[in-house]
Amino acid sequence: MHKVVLATALTLLSALGIAQNQTSNERPRAADLGINVGVLPRGPLNAITDVDGVLVGQTTIIRGDNIRTGVTAILPHAGNLYREKVPGAVFVGNGYGKMTGSTQVEELGEIEGPVLLTNTTSVSQVADALTTYMIGLPGNEDVLSFNPVVGETNDGYLNDIRGRHVSPDDVFAAIKSAKGGPVAEGAVGAGTGTVAFGWKGGIGTASRRLPANLGGYTVGVLVQTNFGGVLTIAGAPVGQELGQYYLREELQKAGNGRDRADGSCMIVVATDAPMDSRNLKRLAARAILGLARTGSASSNGSGDYAIAFSTASQNRIRTADKALTRHTETVTNDTMSPLFEATIEATEEAIYNSMLKATTTTGNGHTVKALPIEETKGVLKKYGVIR
Amino acid sequence: MHKVVLATALTLLSALGIAQNQTSNERPRAADLGINVGVLPRGPLNAITDVDGVLVGQTTIIRGDNIRTGVTAILPHAGNLYREKVPGAVFVGNGYGKMTGSTQVEELGEIEGPVLLTNTTSVSQVADALTTYMIGLPGNEDVLSFNPVVGETNDGYLNDIRGRHVSPDDVFAAIKSAKGGPVAEGAVGAGTGTVAFGWKGGIGTASRRLPANLGGYTVGVLVQTNFGGVLTIAGAPVGQELGQYYLREELQKAGNGRDRADGSCMIVVATDAPMDSRNLKRLAARAILGLARTGSASSNGSGDYAIAFSTASQNRIRTADKALTRHTETVTNDTMSPLFEATIEATEEAIYNSMLKATTTTGNGHTVKALPIEETKGVLKKYGVIR
Amino acid sequence: MHKVVLATALTLLSALGIAQNQTSNERPRAADLGINVGVLPRGPLNAITDVDGVLVGQTTIIRGDNIRTGVTAILPHAGNLYREKVPGAVFVGNGYGKMTGSTQVEELGEIEGPVLLTNTTSVSQVADALTTYMIGLPGNEDVLSFNPVVGETNDGYLNDIRGRHVSPDDVFAAIKSAKGGPVAEGAVGAGTGTVAFGWKGGIGTASRRLPANLGGYTVGVLVQTNFGGVLTIAGAPVGQELGQYYLREELQKAGNGRDRADGSCMIVVATDAPMDSRNLKRLAARAILGLARTGSASSNGSGDYAIAFSTASQNRIRTADKALTRHTETVTNDTMSPLFEATIEATEEAIYNSMLKATTTTGNGHTVKALPIEETKGVLKKYGVIR
Amino acid sequence: MHKVVLATALTLLSALGIAQNQTSNERPRAADLGINVGVLPRGPLNAITDVDGVLVGQTTIIRGDNIRTGVTAILPHAGNLYREKVPGAVFVGNGYGKMTGSTQVEELGEIEGPVLLTNTTSVSQVADALTTYMIGLPGNEDVLSFNPVVGETNDGYLNDIRGRHVSPDDVFAAIKSAKGGPVAEGAVGAGTGTVAFGWKGGIGTASRRLPANLGGYTVGVLVQTNFGGVLTIAGAPVGQELGQYYLREELQKAGNGRDRADGSCMIVVATDAPMDSRNLKRLAARAILGLARTGSASSNGSGDYAIAFSTASQNRIRTADKALTRHTETVTNDTMSPLFEATIEATEEAIYNSMLKATTTTGNGHTVKALPIEETKGVLKKYGVIR
Repeated sequence: MHKVVLATALTLLSALGIAQNQTSNERPRAADLGINVGVLPRGPLNAITDVDGVLVGQTTIIRGDNIRTGVTAILPHAGNLYREKVPGAVFVGNGYGKMTGSTQVEELGEIEGPVLLTNTTSVSQVADALTTYMIGLPGNEDVLSFNPVVGETNDGYLNDIRGRHVSPDDVFAAIKSAKGGPVAEGAVGAGTGTVAFGWKGGIGTASRRLPANLGGYTVGVLVQTNFGGVLTIAGAPVGQELGQYYLREELQKAGNGRDRADGSCMIVVATDAPMDSRNLKRLAARAILGLARTGSASSNGSGDYAIAFSTASQNRIRTADKALTRHTETVTNDTMSPLFEATIEATEEAIYNSMLKATTTTGNGHTVKALPIEETKGVLKKYGVIR
Repeated sequence: MHKVVLATALTLLSALGIAQNQTSNERPRAADLGINVGVLPRGPLNAITDVDGVLVGQTTIIRGDNIRTGVTAILPHAGNLYREKVPGAVFVGNGYGKMTGSTQVEELGEIEGPVLLTNTTSVSQVADALTTYMIGLPGNEDVLSFNPVVGETNDGYLNDIRGRHVSPDDVFAAIKSAKGGPVAEGAVGAGTGTVAFGWKGGIGTASRRLPANLGGYTVGVLVQTNFGGVLTIAGAPVGQELGQYYLREELQKAGNGRDRADGSCMIVVATDAPMDSRNLKRLAARAILGLARTGSASSNGSGDYAIAFSTASQNRIRTADKALTRHTETVTNDTMSPLFEATIEATEEAIYNSMLKATTTTGNGHTVKALPIEETKGVLKKYGVIR
Repeated sequence: MHKVVLATALTLLSALGIAQNQTSNERPRAADLGINVGVLPRGPLNAITDVDGVLVGQTTIIRGDNIRTGVTAILPHAGNLYREKVPGAVFVGNGYGKMTGSTQVEELGEIEGPVLLTNTTSVSQVADALTTYMIGLPGNEDVLSFNPVVGETNDGYLNDIRGRHVSPDDVFAAIKSAKGGPVAEGAVGAGTGTVAFGWKGGIGTASRRLPANLGGYTVGVLVQTNFGGVLTIAGAPVGQELGQYYLREELQKAGNGRDRADGSCMIVVATDAPMDSRNLKRLAARAILGLARTGSASSNGSGDYAIAFSTASQNRIRTADKALTRHTETVTNDTMSPLFEATIEATEEAIYNSMLKATTTTGNGHTVKALPIEETKGVLKKYGVIR
Repeated sequence: MHKVVLATALTLLSALGIAQNQTSNERPRAADLGINVGVLPRGPLNAITDVDGVLVGQTTIIRGDNIRTGVTAILPHAGNLYREKVPGAVFVGNGYGKMTGSTQVEELGEIEGPVLLTNTTSVSQVADALTTYMIGLPGNEDVLSFNPVVGETNDGYLNDIRGRHVSPDDVFAAIKSAKGGPVAEGAVGAGTGTVAFGWKGGIGTASRRLPANLGGYTVGVLVQTNFGGVLTIAGAPVGQELGQYYLREELQKAGNGRDRADGSCMIVVATDAPMDSRNLKRLAARAILGLARTGSASSNGSGDYAIAFSTASQNRIRTADKALTRHTETVTNDTMSPLFEATIEATEEAIYNSMLKATTTTGNGHTVKALPIEETKGVLKKYGVIR
């Protein structure tokens, strides 16, 4: 009954166009547990919003017994993104997914709107609402073409995905509520109904900041986790110790192992390092390496995409600029290696955060438990990850 | 006034779910003019529907003064395409476009629904309606994921593209009306409002059939033309002779030449040659070569995509088949060359047909004239293309 | 007998390390015949060397009865290319070829040495000699890694290609003799033994210069032609009229048509437009469109590669520069379209030049005739290409 | 002194054309230490040669004080590989490398010779010798074109890489000595002079065999390790615990961190699962995920390539077969996921084996120590990886 009340309240909030960006809970992030991922220092918020100017907004859609989904919006800057595009790139780790917009990003090397995440069958709806939003912005009255970048994972286990319950208002709410500062993680926004490694997945974020002698740049990552595999946390075999991992049954001679690790992982990488699209694509490729370190095998049915953009304002592509050439300042190839390391580490940690913050969720006739904190801590201690 | 009546009648037909596949007019196709393109023989209909089993349906949307758009649907076969997918591939000639579905086609090598064409800002709407249609088909009650393949060109000169006037019913009508036989060409379906080389573009189709000693295979092509360049027809410099071509003004010291040849060309290639996705991608790449031969420079703003699929029934990917392996019969690499030639020739001719059949169109405050037949014939005679 | 003397003399020159860049003959270039290709004006030399700083050197290897091969070197500038790399890109039209270096060019967006062309089985030898040359340059004493970019076509019909007769000295001679100014065309350098459309192919070059209002940039192209298809010249069906074209026999029920159009086309595109590697790759893709316009179907066995680089000195990647970032000035996406047109036109014309300048060649027990000038002129007149 | 004797003896063996495939030493493999990597069972030899028919041959070149390099050859089968090609694919993790042959493998989906590994500047020499070998095989007298697939890493720290000391005989010896059975690991063949994570790298191998209900297929991997990063072994932070890892100095405010993790990793993946080139490319992509799990960041200067092939004999591409089509049996997309997991696990373990088996090596004025077994075991115990 309480659940019904909560759902009703949230529905009301949603109907009012109020995004649930403020969701928080008592569950710890990886850093709270003392987990170290890699060697580089975190940014102040340990979030994608550590990259100056980046905004995140989320709409969590929980209605009745079977609707558990949402929208997460990541904005490279607060201005008119169509008029001031940012250099961007997409890397496809495994393309079993419905993400829109990738071919134009690849061709032109730029992103011209918010990056949105949602569920699989709502991609078209969300892209449509995003188009409505963007061509409706003041100053965009003459815009006849817009490239919506919308990613997804499949929350069809906890959510009535065939019902396609994301409305234009849900999309507008996510975009309009976008702000800097801490980012809600876990079962929120586009992560409301996702599942990772058999536990509740969701939205997670993390960041790394390079020391000054390496440029002092920040890399921030936000993930939507909905995939399988053999979970390790900072190297500790949590999945195996807790008896839940890809192919467990098959190795015990039951099942056929196909599709069991499926799902997807969407990864958004932001950086203030001035970077062209070629190096952004290389950066995006490293996000998939961070995914690999958590135990994902990028299974056949997984849509693993990384979208990267650079916020450096001097490199924005401004439609008002009619010159034949543009002057840019970009990091050299040689400068990229520490940024690669930062991307991998932040992605890995963001995935842990998405699970650690996610809460047990019931929907669509199924319940998916949150990663059990105490048992997980036990494994982490056993394997020396935390003390 | 007649126009209003026509528009009203068409709207009515559209509202009734009746697609305007039957549009025809007195204008000639390339073959009617005696134009030979290449060296290979045409199929019986000289249409994509010469590939056995392929169906085409179109919804032409003409309403009021400013709505000139539509939908064209190409179905690889008449069955449940999700349950019996076909090998497929996408080649991106120039990715300034919003086509959906390409990354999954690339990853899995298969197409699981009708291929739809429409206008730029309606892609999301059309993809959404296509998803509705496909998950709603009998037998698809458990489908939680579908990959819509929807391409577009920008008809914003003749059409109120910001209004996004394609409804779900328009999409359903195009799919449901799909049939074999002759294909309506010109200002119909997704070509209702398009412009090519400064004249009215539209939908066009053509085919080639290999002689028996080369396998006897058929290649059929359907195009949606909306691009610029320096038009040549079978080599004759029609654009220059008629004084309308890319960079004409710039070469006369006016204008800056940027974006003048923009627009896009969507190309769908069907074949009954049994072919895997790797060779289908190579085939798709040749469609862009056919595009080049008409005088397109694949300009910066052009979204030039080719989508190819093979209808050979023994190679369908059936979801009911749970075996670990599948047996296929596919053409060898060595067998591909004549199929490449066929694709290039059919694409080139389909583009000419799209223009020859297109009629002068007024919409959105603009008028675009049809390619003038008599003047064109004059040029073709002058350059020996026809007698 | 004269031929033997010539061959001996050339062998002697070759042995002396003297490159045969000066080869010329009485045969006309396309421009000499009055053929217009496209709409843009040519550069002063109508050669890749119209791009300021670009140098070309060639070694023609003619020895005895069966050796007809060579090396063509294109240098982006006269300095130490390893120390001052240029932005570069490779586009693969059809990858049945042995070109080296493409993955590093793709990853880093730069070319760090001369671009060399030779025959198929000599690629490794030429790459090895190029490595020797580059690590041996003054200032390169500490170089432990070098990425040789070497392309090829298969001259095995006229040349004893299994014998692999290109020596390091042949390579050094081509590089060292590189210079600006007119470029020898036809059966010279890497084009000594090649065949195109059944006639003698070879090296060809052409250029286009944009009007000042489009930036005033120059695009220069050099090709090595060794492929088949249905030759058209500026639209005129020369192949069909002269009775020699791909699939002719098959359409007359003889043969099986496989491999008959094989061979390859290497295309090198140079521009002084300041351009990053992403746009250079797009430029390279347009060269393949120019190839298509001559009647190539990019057959299965064809290795069709385009290599593009930008000479703009402010964008060179200098190894001495240790800063974290670099400042560049590059053309915008919108500026690209006329450069695309220029690339297509120059490629098409360079291919014609390669054939028009090539002379009948006997080697390896075969004779390949030069494109017959008078008959060709007849066809061109018949089809209105020339008067 | 003993070392000199050994070097002399090895030089002698090398001169005699005898490959050093038999190198072994007392150092343990990962399995010997009780390290478990992943969840799938190993093959009997835990080597790439567990894939039936795969042969490995190696030439270790140790001469004087400064030559420490070699060749490793992997043969998909013992027959004439040109006449019976195997389906193959290449995935480029980071393309700062000189690997040859990738574009043709991508285009045609097949590998037509042994896969060879060597050092960076010897790639051309090795490719040339491989060409000599292949066109010289009985039955290949009419071969006019061959695509050598040769990969490399840069052993220039321990080896006089500018001297390019790999001879044709070294290449022939590696190929001719190729055999099934156990594979020599560590500082042998192409791994003689490589460095990984600051310790001695080299050649490593491992395999996984799927349970029967997943197809019973085998995946075998062979690696040439020469890269940096932050070494973890089965999750344990060995690099950090032993005080040697990428960016350590930079994080302590010294150095600029650029290029410190550079080097490369070549990965060869073999499987008996019948697979087409599209799925082989996906498989190859997973090898890079296995690389990621060891702590590599695929740094800017790293050439990380994975080459995959399938040995299933029914799918070989036989040049003698002139039919228009071929019949193949290949695993479905759904069957791929466990094969992905197998590839990741085998790659990760092969990398550990390459380091565990590698011995301290002095050459070219430098000494690189082997990973210290006892200290490593201490770390592994501390972190629960072994008992």
